[in-house]
Amino acid sequence: MKDKNQREEKREILIDIIEDNETVLFTTISLSGNIHSRPMSYQDVEFDGDLWFMTRKDTSKYDEILKNPKVNIGIFDDSYASIAGTATIVEDDARKKEYWNKFYEKLFDTNYDDPMLVLIKVHVETAEYWETGNFTKSVVNFVKQVVGNEDHVKEEDDVNASVEL
Amino acid sequence: MKDKNQREEKREILIDIIEDNETVLFTTISLSGNIHSRPMSYQDVEFDGDLWFMTRKDTSKYDEILKNPKVNIGIFDDSYASIAGTATIVEDDARKKEYWNKFYEKLFDTNYDDPMLVLIKVHVETAEYWETGNFTKSVVNFVKQVVGNEDHVKEEDDVNASVEL
Repeated sequence: MKDKNQREEKREILIDIIEDNETVLFTTISLSGNIHSRPMSYQDVEFDGDLWFMTRKDTSKYDEILKNPKVNIGIFDDSYASIAGTATIVEDDARKKEYWNKFYEKLFDTNYDDPMLVLIKVHVETAEYWETGNFTKSVVNFVKQVVGNEDHVKEEDDVNASVEL
Repeated sequence: MKDKNQREEKREILIDIIEDNETVLFTTISLSGNIHSRPMSYQDVEFDGDLWFMTRKDTSKYDEILKNPKVNIGIFDDSYASIAGTATIVEDDARKKEYWNKFYEKLFDTNYDDPMLVLIKVHVETAEYWETGNFTKSVVNFVKQVVGNEDHVKEEDDVNASVEL
């Protein structure tokens, strides 16, 4: 039970760090293998570990995700987080409508049902975070192992906790 | 001349953005292909485009750089920057001594000539930045083309300038 509580506490801290930051650094690997990032706003955090973004098909990240779905969400504020996951392009008008707002309307200069607009779903696999003023890394894994009818979450938090600078 | 001035102006803006931030997000590709980042402080900016960091050999980024030297320096403040480059591990006691300070002494709990301490030199290839409140990306390339006795810097700034969110 102690392990489960520690795991939940770490997830709660991570979600707090994410929710404190509307804008994150969204990092992809380019077709030539270079690492690129850009500021992006996420739309939704579902914690079992999915983050949702909206973009256009004529952006470099759309092509990059189709070629290599490994992405990173970086948070750089009073606290830091490095969230590694796999991105999927999702075309879902109902969900686009749900996330649509005045800011998007102005930014994209179109309506939510424009087929050029797509959603990016990032399934988080590992998140590392450093709380304010703390150089010790905490690690949260989101790898689910299905055993029988239950989902078990594999945790390696303590093993990976380390100082890295 | 106009192009040259624009290029120099962009580099100056980029250097200002870097120098406003002692701590950056240092991103590497892990052995399994995941993208990982961690906060790091740089020691020096040499602009023709080299950034210097110090680390220990027993960190994940040391192993990752030896396997895949592509890295990214992310800046996430009032302005944003994504700086893509190639990292080299450098063992140079004279330079380590030059960068050594009280903070390092406390952090690493050793002396500058400890062989476990190495320098990371990041040679910048492309930098993209977004100035405060501006969603338009500016691109600076650091690719040098040696023609005769002169260095010419290839620029594709205007072609790449675009909005991406």
